[in-house]
Amino acid sequence: MAVRAAVAGASGYAGGEILRLLAGHPGVEIGALTGNSNAGQRLGALQPHLAPLADRVLEPTSAETLAGHDVVFLALPHGQSAAVAEQLGDEVLVVDCGADFRLRDAQDWERFYGTPHAGTWPYGLPELPGARDALRGSRRVAVPGCYPTTVSLALFPAFAAGLVEPDVVVVAASGTSGAGKALKPHLLGSEVMGSMSPYGVGGVHRHIPEMVQNLSAVAGERVTVSFTPTLAPMPRGILATCTARARPGLTAGRLREAYGKALAAEPFVRLLPEGQWPSTAAVYGSNTVLLQVAYDEAANRVIAVGALDNLTKGTAGGAVQSMNIALGIPEETGLPVTGVAP
Amino acid sequence: MAVRAAVAGASGYAGGEILRLLAGHPGVEIGALTGNSNAGQRLGALQPHLAPLADRVLEPTSAETLAGHDVVFLALPHGQSAAVAEQLGDEVLVVDCGADFRLRDAQDWERFYGTPHAGTWPYGLPELPGARDALRGSRRVAVPGCYPTTVSLALFPAFAAGLVEPDVVVVAASGTSGAGKALKPHLLGSEVMGSMSPYGVGGVHRHIPEMVQNLSAVAGERVTVSFTPTLAPMPRGILATCTARARPGLTAGRLREAYGKALAAEPFVRLLPEGQWPSTAAVYGSNTVLLQVAYDEAANRVIAVGALDNLTKGTAGGAVQSMNIALGIPEETGLPVTGVAP
Amino acid sequence: MAVRAAVAGASGYAGGEILRLLAGHPGVEIGALTGNSNAGQRLGALQPHLAPLADRVLEPTSAETLAGHDVVFLALPHGQSAAVAEQLGDEVLVVDCGADFRLRDAQDWERFYGTPHAGTWPYGLPELPGARDALRGSRRVAVPGCYPTTVSLALFPAFAAGLVEPDVVVVAASGTSGAGKALKPHLLGSEVMGSMSPYGVGGVHRHIPEMVQNLSAVAGERVTVSFTPTLAPMPRGILATCTARARPGLTAGRLREAYGKALAAEPFVRLLPEGQWPSTAAVYGSNTVLLQVAYDEAANRVIAVGALDNLTKGTAGGAVQSMNIALGIPEETGLPVTGVAP
Amino acid sequence: MAVRAAVAGASGYAGGEILRLLAGHPGVEIGALTGNSNAGQRLGALQPHLAPLADRVLEPTSAETLAGHDVVFLALPHGQSAAVAEQLGDEVLVVDCGADFRLRDAQDWERFYGTPHAGTWPYGLPELPGARDALRGSRRVAVPGCYPTTVSLALFPAFAAGLVEPDVVVVAASGTSGAGKALKPHLLGSEVMGSMSPYGVGGVHRHIPEMVQNLSAVAGERVTVSFTPTLAPMPRGILATCTARARPGLTAGRLREAYGKALAAEPFVRLLPEGQWPSTAAVYGSNTVLLQVAYDEAANRVIAVGALDNLTKGTAGGAVQSMNIALGIPEETGLPVTGVAP
Repeated sequence: MAVRAAVAGASGYAGGEILRLLAGHPGVEIGALTGNSNAGQRLGALQPHLAPLADRVLEPTSAETLAGHDVVFLALPHGQSAAVAEQLGDEVLVVDCGADFRLRDAQDWERFYGTPHAGTWPYGLPELPGARDALRGSRRVAVPGCYPTTVSLALFPAFAAGLVEPDVVVVAASGTSGAGKALKPHLLGSEVMGSMSPYGVGGVHRHIPEMVQNLSAVAGERVTVSFTPTLAPMPRGILATCTARARPGLTAGRLREAYGKALAAEPFVRLLPEGQWPSTAAVYGSNTVLLQVAYDEAANRVIAVGALDNLTKGTAGGAVQSMNIALGIPEETGLPVTGVAP
Repeated sequence: MAVRAAVAGASGYAGGEILRLLAGHPGVEIGALTGNSNAGQRLGALQPHLAPLADRVLEPTSAETLAGHDVVFLALPHGQSAAVAEQLGDEVLVVDCGADFRLRDAQDWERFYGTPHAGTWPYGLPELPGARDALRGSRRVAVPGCYPTTVSLALFPAFAAGLVEPDVVVVAASGTSGAGKALKPHLLGSEVMGSMSPYGVGGVHRHIPEMVQNLSAVAGERVTVSFTPTLAPMPRGILATCTARARPGLTAGRLREAYGKALAAEPFVRLLPEGQWPSTAAVYGSNTVLLQVAYDEAANRVIAVGALDNLTKGTAGGAVQSMNIALGIPEETGLPVTGVAP
Repeated sequence: MAVRAAVAGASGYAGGEILRLLAGHPGVEIGALTGNSNAGQRLGALQPHLAPLADRVLEPTSAETLAGHDVVFLALPHGQSAAVAEQLGDEVLVVDCGADFRLRDAQDWERFYGTPHAGTWPYGLPELPGARDALRGSRRVAVPGCYPTTVSLALFPAFAAGLVEPDVVVVAASGTSGAGKALKPHLLGSEVMGSMSPYGVGGVHRHIPEMVQNLSAVAGERVTVSFTPTLAPMPRGILATCTARARPGLTAGRLREAYGKALAAEPFVRLLPEGQWPSTAAVYGSNTVLLQVAYDEAANRVIAVGALDNLTKGTAGGAVQSMNIALGIPEETGLPVTGVAP
Repeated sequence: MAVRAAVAGASGYAGGEILRLLAGHPGVEIGALTGNSNAGQRLGALQPHLAPLADRVLEPTSAETLAGHDVVFLALPHGQSAAVAEQLGDEVLVVDCGADFRLRDAQDWERFYGTPHAGTWPYGLPELPGARDALRGSRRVAVPGCYPTTVSLALFPAFAAGLVEPDVVVVAASGTSGAGKALKPHLLGSEVMGSMSPYGVGGVHRHIPEMVQNLSAVAGERVTVSFTPTLAPMPRGILATCTARARPGLTAGRLREAYGKALAAEPFVRLLPEGQWPSTAAVYGSNTVLLQVAYDEAANRVIAVGALDNLTKGTAGGAVQSMNIALGIPEETGLPVTGVAP
């Protein structure tokens, strides 16, 4: 029997991607679609690519419209999830794509988000040590940010094997959908096409404490992260280049072995053959993460590069993957593993 | 029990898209993957987006490697299909994505392709009057060209209802994958990005006789087509703007009614609500065709615009859809109807 | 001695391009830069590519700030130019990049713009018969729309020579800067990249009466224009595919001869060698228009294709070219003729 | 009296950009244009954006065709410059855009290029300490690589002021023109658009020894560089994100002061106002370099970001700038400082 799912924030990019995946999920029946400013509109006018759902009409986001579902996906602006979640019963699975419940440290939250900390929910990155078990049977899931998903998957094997120093430099490129549908001049096509630009430089990006939290937990010591995100002229995709100084005794062989061992059983993370590097095009629209790692002897640094689709594995795919685990549905159900390329 | 399918030309864009769709088709087991210059290579090195098939190795395209399959998809350069098809038994379903068997008129073939005509197979555009029946049980299918698919679907309802003059002007934009993986300077990213350019102008494009054939059959009279294709800075997608002079008595209402009636039962073709126009982004990676039509009274012309993904509905999706019909599998099986957007 | 120029609307795309050209114009000194919502801001924050003007500050658009200049460029929303122009003396050269003074027929204006007609100024497309003379010494110039510039240049030689029927079909692709800096969802990079889409379909685009006006004047009879604009995934550039039925006796030779004769003396319009077709990339940032023409015998239609940069020759370059003529400065001064490619 | 310049390798991207700049340089007369496989072709067929030079015909690259010029620009594949330069008299200014004469250390050359070291010429990055003087009156110039230009300009002020540790991590994104016109599958538009991918990862990129050479000279000690280049979906532009650990006592103020002082007099390098970050779009087609710098206290790292156009300041613009200095022409002559945007 299908579970009945509602999506709050169905007019945005995250909400649209959740719907694209749920529409192909054999175990899910799509219930209420809600929005705020867009309530009352046909979904087809807002998300024309969701052809089978074109005639569905958005309802307002409220306890009433979200009631009576087995699963509720929240794709809302940061800070709005707690109030909505409170109104939903403990038996309802709430999958929050916002940041509200990702961080364990209230001070980190307040420093980077400037509001009171709402709490901490099981973290929807099942590939991290212990995370999958914490998701089983849970009725609350905090879906990770797209950058932390990429960076954590690219580096945790190195930290788990104690191969690198706890001082990481990450430069990542993201497609524009990562910034959402906000009407800002720098997101106009005329500005974006042909342009690479950094933003949130200097340790201020809100995804930093999440990366620090994930990597420190695996490393067993405090990891610092220098993180520079850049906006790339493409709609989707994240490419994260992550480097850390090698610890004594590291060899290319031991590095590769550590990654192979840590990822062998993962259905959505693939360590590429030696010499082949990830590209965002190869994971376009899929829940697959492509990884490659190398050791630069001259600089004595490990370079790990990860590519994923920020809307699929980086948001909606991770959310559906976590839903599957929480509800005891086979983890890979309804999740594409082939990219749409070229 | 799954049918066993081979793909000849698995290293190209059409072959890769066929594999992307077959990998998600519940009724198909993927057999031999063949190539010529690329025989012996891992598919993962050539088509990194096909993660689940990454370790499959390409075999040479030959009667031996293609033997023992229920279906063989041919994604070969024009002129190579006949020789391969001859070697395959009549009980094997051969789905040819090349041009060889599309045209009924041998003179048209020779004028545009310059080689002897190989013959004519049932035409894989089931939405055209009579085409679906001809495909049922057939063991040979000629998959249409991507432009003829778009233009024929955009205009046949107007001709079926006798609403327009048999003198059509079409200007279409195509993503670069329509030109295949050929290493030509004008297809380099540096040349393509930021550029719109026409090609094959002046009645010389090889898809013209195919459009003329399809529209004339529906119109019951000879239709002429002025066709100008343009190369657009995007990997996928065709947007075809098709116009024809209105016949006396045409009204916007009668026009819309004719399209509604002709397309109502089609699972993959959607006439958009009035005022909403198609975009290629909305059909990215899907088998859906989006159409809209308008009547310009001042110019007394009908304008029909169609958008599809040249690799999905325009090639591989049309091929799989035809396979489903030929084999009696439900027509929509394994074919995505939602686009990957944004 | 340099002429002193002010630019009203300096924060927009047209205003920015005027400034890019004036900054390289040896005969011009840049005076006041004005805006409305952006008054008080550094230009560098709004137009970071105009490095030498980065520290200039925008003033409000008013009679005071615009006073004391020899030339005033108006890059304002449609309908705002008349009020500003009235306040400027007759001795000041006013170059209006808006639509307000382009049309001669008040009814056309009212039908397409819905406001009272402000009047008609000399038309800034010097390549049209008679236009250059009308601009000499003028103190008012109406800069043409970007589409009418492209289409008029692509077709006027055929009409001047009486080679085609007065019934034209045009499909054009434009870069997103043609839509300006307006914050609209469909102009977001996430929506635009990878997408071709039509807009203003069915005879409603405001540039139609302007094309009809220009071509009818050359043809000596009423020309109808079926015009479909499309939005292309690039920041700049227009590619217009223009077709008209051939009149009896037309040959490819006579067609080419007519174009050669009409354009031979033009510094900014180039008829390409036979077989070479225009691309928008080749005119990126330049004031050059590239044209090619062909005769499709089977369809009995002439196809003329023109490419230009909508912000340069399509707006700001045409404005500066007209300024040069009006002020008796050599016409090519300060206008790039090489594109920035690849 | 104008100097007469020849360009060897006029059919490539670097050669084309040199010609775009020389065509607008008041002190230069363009002489021979040479190529190898393309000798005999019209330039217009190979570089359609160079409208004024369209009818020039390429000659073979030889001592004869290059003789009789005051300046010869070499835009040849690595390893071919020495043989050509030898045949040119010492009084001829030879500006080499290849790598052959960039490195001082023969072992570095042999390790990264695998051929005997041809020698070392004055280095065409005038902004580096001492470089401008070395170029004055020189008749040989080695134009830097595009990445070393960006990274050296972004970091030398920090090293000159002794503010950072000699252990640098750089991740840079480049437009596809940086890879030249080579016909390689991964450079096809279909592959590039929508895709970010790394290449030459792990300390193997040939620009590394050049960065190490430049930064070590300024630092006065050996600097190590971990460099990861990525290919971005745009034709032009480099965005380099450069980080180094801060030395004790560093403050944001001292950092900014050091950059301001080092760059104040440079005509082509601009330190942006605090809070504004560079973008490649803002320098499209210009010789301007935009820089911004920040100090991340939590990670104790300096982040310097530089943006330039790889074909202009990164190659051809740097070449023309060096020519100006060598010949005693005002340094800024013929070099655009405004980008073509949007």
